[in-house]
Amino acid sequence: MINRKTIHIEWGDCDPAQIVYYPRYFEYFDSCTAALFAKAGFSKREVLKTYGIVGFPLVEVRSRFMAPSHFSEDVVVESEITEWRNSSFCVRHQLFKENVLAVECFEIRVWAAVSANDPDKIESRPIPREIIERFANPAL
Amino acid sequence: MINRKTIHIEWGDCDPAQIVYYPRYFEYFDSCTAALFAKAGFSKREVLKTYGIVGFPLVEVRSRFMAPSHFSEDVVVESEITEWRNSSFCVRHQLFKENVLAVECFEIRVWAAVSANDPDKIESRPIPREIIERFANPAL
Amino acid sequence: MINRKTIHIEWGDCDPAQIVYYPRYFEYFDSCTAALFAKAGFSKREVLKTYGIVGFPLVEVRSRFMAPSHFSEDVVVESEITEWRNSSFCVRHQLFKENVLAVECFEIRVWAAVSANDPDKIESRPIPREIIERFANPAL
Amino acid sequence: MINRKTIHIEWGDCDPAQIVYYPRYFEYFDSCTAALFAKAGFSKREVLKTYGIVGFPLVEVRSRFMAPSHFSEDVVVESEITEWRNSSFCVRHQLFKENVLAVECFEIRVWAAVSANDPDKIESRPIPREIIERFANPAL
Repeated sequence: MINRKTIHIEWGDCDPAQIVYYPRYFEYFDSCTAALFAKAGFSKREVLKTYGIVGFPLVEVRSRFMAPSHFSEDVVVESEITEWRNSSFCVRHQLFKENVLAVECFEIRVWAAVSANDPDKIESRPIPREIIERFANPAL
Repeated sequence: MINRKTIHIEWGDCDPAQIVYYPRYFEYFDSCTAALFAKAGFSKREVLKTYGIVGFPLVEVRSRFMAPSHFSEDVVVESEITEWRNSSFCVRHQLFKENVLAVECFEIRVWAAVSANDPDKIESRPIPREIIERFANPAL
Repeated sequence: MINRKTIHIEWGDCDPAQIVYYPRYFEYFDSCTAALFAKAGFSKREVLKTYGIVGFPLVEVRSRFMAPSHFSEDVVVESEITEWRNSSFCVRHQLFKENVLAVECFEIRVWAAVSANDPDKIESRPIPREIIERFANPAL
Repeated sequence: MINRKTIHIEWGDCDPAQIVYYPRYFEYFDSCTAALFAKAGFSKREVLKTYGIVGFPLVEVRSRFMAPSHFSEDVVVESEITEWRNSSFCVRHQLFKENVLAVECFEIRVWAAVSANDPDKIESRPIPREIIERFANPAL
């Protein structure tokens, strides 16, 4: 399952060089991961309530920036979960500007809940099988 | 030359999981790269004016998140330029929380100016020798 | 002319209280003002190029927050220019959550260009008549 | 009690007009309100834990922008609580650039906890007397 999300580059996402300030790309990609779950039938708010987690924070990310984008432009991000592990998963985002790959990003995220021993800590949890199955078969 | 910058984690940097929303780390690291140049004697504003560039945007970044941080905490980021190339340079940031490495980030940035042929584009430029020399010998 | 924009509240727009971190509302409203110009036929990028301005920064803003919003919710913002002055204009934004007014915002923005005397300063300029006419009659 | 906080304007806080993107001012002011509480002896994290609240979100804000600021500049914000009401309080922030008042902001914030009847809602609570006393007499 691939999600395609059109993003309008806003004035406030750009820096004095007139191009997207790069941390904003990670905001885009974070919302694209959420959109991927929504496409599979789970809004992020529902996921957290249903499975008792606090989120799926990143443990690793790498990104390449091949071409800049400017305010008032539209870009399209294609997002896909490329691997499910026991308590983590990998996401690939590809941002296209007029069909040219402009930014690529690889995330590793962990399925995380509040620690049973220390409410100030979070710890990984096994990803529920039904989540993985729904992504494999969104029509369920 | 290593720069150490203390960062106070703000409420608005944190997400509903009560921890730093990860794109904010890249905002921290971007300001740490600017602080590194300031320590070498160049404010970012001066660098741009003096050398006619639009900035030093990223072409590649990778980061690992080992431990989360929370609002009202102080963290320390150590930043260092690890390599100078012809028109790009590499920066390493290490974010410590109570002396424990919590986040690590590697940036590749390019020395960029407005293209001579197309004012809507930017292109790389050779990094001025005096920049590199000043980092090697900040006392100059 | 009124513009209606649906905004999906993102995880990263919310703070540890699980509600929208209030500066994000101003990012929403800023993009809504840009969308209003786009609806009138002017992308922000075109406006700047065509009329030689640097933007329409705020000189005054006030806002009331009647009800919070949460991530994964959709809200609708209605935006309207309520007054054109010589070199400034007033915008009203109303953010609705399930048809209930949740946030209201009043902006005064100035039509601003780089100062003729000092390239580091910006100064107000008369708003071009065709801009105002286009808003009055978008079909032109 | 007045708190003075020096803020270094970062590259990423500025927009393509080369000046601070105005929602960032509200991020500055939000951190200044937190710093005011910290000066009175309460970190925001402690306040929330000690008094069982989720924060002190805004119900109203108004701001005037008299002069822009640019990246690599330092500004100073003076913050003061101007009024304590039963379950809300008023804060004034004045941002100075080289001793000239550049931005002024007035906030009304509410002391807010999770609703007893609906965990998805928040509601106001009376401000604890000791909070108000500590601000009146920080030496306590």
